[in-house]
Formats: sequence, C-alpha cells, structure tokens
Amino acid sequence: MAILKIEHLGIAVNDASAAKKVFEQLLGKPSFKEELVESESVNTIFYELGESKLELLEATDESSAIAKYLGKNRPGIHHMAVLVDDIYAEVKRLQELGFHFINPEPKQGADNKLIVFIHPKSAGGILLELCQEINGKLLG
Amino acid sequence: MAILKIEHLGIAVNDASAAKKVFEQLLGKPSFKEELVESESVNTIFYELGESKLELLEATDESSAIAKYLGKNRPGIHHMAVLVDDIYAEVKRLQELGFHFINPEPKQGADNKLIVFIHPKSAGGILLELCQEINGKLLG
Repeated sequence: MAILKIEHLGIAVNDASAAKKVFEQLLGKPSFKEELVESESVNTIFYELGESKLELLEATDESSAIAKYLGKNRPGIHHMAVLVDDIYAEVKRLQELGFHFINPEPKQGADNKLIVFIHPKSAGGILLELCQEINGKLLG
Repeated sequence: MAILKIEHLGIAVNDASAAKKVFEQLLGKPSFKEELVESESVNTIFYELGESKLELLEATDESSAIAKYLGKNRPGIHHMAVLVDDIYAEVKRLQELGFHFINPEPKQGADNKLIVFIHPKSAGGILLELCQEINGKLLG
C-alpha cells in the first residue's frame, strides 16, 4: 500500500467563470471536465497538469464547505488530494500513527473517487484528501 | 513551450523537526534532500510524491519570507511551483496576457532551479512559481 502521487489540488474560487479564464490562459489549454457535485454544493472544473489535476471549486449555495471556507479565507489552494492504492489500509495505518480524520469512513466524492479527509492539524496545516478510484481503475 | 507538471508544493512550517516527523509518517518514507538556502533564509526539506515534490520551508531568521508569511498566516501550502521548459518564453507569454510577476527576471532558487513568482492576485489566489532546471537538465 502506498501514497502514489498528487491526484489534484482543490482551488477555492469565488467566480468560476473568471477563474476559468485565468487558468486557461495560465495553462494554455481548456478544462477537460466540469462536474456539478450536488451532494457537496460545488461546481468543479478540472485541468490536467502533468500526472495531477487542478480542480476549481465554486460553491453553488451557502451550505457548501467552499462558501464557508471563503467566508474566512481568501481564494486559493483549499486542499491537496493524494492518490492511494488502498484507501482502507491507508486510513488504518495513519489512524494507528495518530492522524486525525474528518471522516474516517471513505465516502463518494467528485470524479468517481472514494475519499477521506485528514484534519489540517494532523497534516502540517494542509487539508489532506486521500482518494482512490472507484472500481480499482487507478489513474497512476 | 509549456507548463509541464507540478514541480513542488512549498509548505511553510514553524518547526522543521516536528514537520519532518509528520511528513515521514504520512508518506511512509524519509526526505531525500535537505538544503539551507542562505539567500532566502530558509531551511528546505524535500520529499518525493509521484513526479512532484513536497518542499518543507522553515525560516532561519526574521528576514525570511517564510517568517513574514507565518506572522500573518497559519502553516500550510505557501506556494505551488510548476516546471516549465522555457522560463523566459513563459514569462513573456504570461506578461503579454496581463499576468503580474513579483520578479519577472528569473533568479536562482533552491534545488538548482531558475525561478520566477507570479503574484497571487493574478493566479486565482495562488502564489505561483515557474521554475526550470539550470543547465537544461529537465526532470519532466
């Protein structure tokens, strides 16, 4: 079992249309996917960057974690997600080492993934997502 | 010319020894390099993560940009660095698109790189480093 790579960086944005223009110019290419994640009240826009992705996150209503985040913080990198090959084994390994999970039970996230979040206090100040492709279809 | 990958994430830490323990446990492996960058007054500790790196940044004195950052912000992701194949061409391309650089003239940074920084206001709130290996030795 292992942590394989940076799967994506989640970037909190106030205005997805404006941010889309910036990241398309920056990266010199369009997004490859846009997905509304109703369960999280976020619009997501994905860009490829090497083996990783940038995931723009725009809140669709006030209940969204992104809306709450942007009520207290400036736009920017909201979380880092790393791809793992066995999410249940990694949760067990890291819990035994004392890492604190926000949700230790993997749940379905955007982009066809099982995800868990480690609390920033456990991970050097980073809101850290572990994710694994559903159905064993690994991108790494 | 192109932006190739996430070269590293720079992570501002208060205490490098404590952070080192956390990231070694998290990634399940030791750092592969430690480098004192006297010109920036930072200690750097590097971890491999897929094709990217995590770079822990600890200030060595109060003049350091990291000390100033941690005076106003919590520890966590300080900047994102992307590897480019032609840093002078990328600076020119992005300046023409209106991106604002903190230092448009590439300077020598840690890890044998030429680096420039784009202001967070131009890049979706992210302090964005463009970097290129010195001597054309590309890692990508």
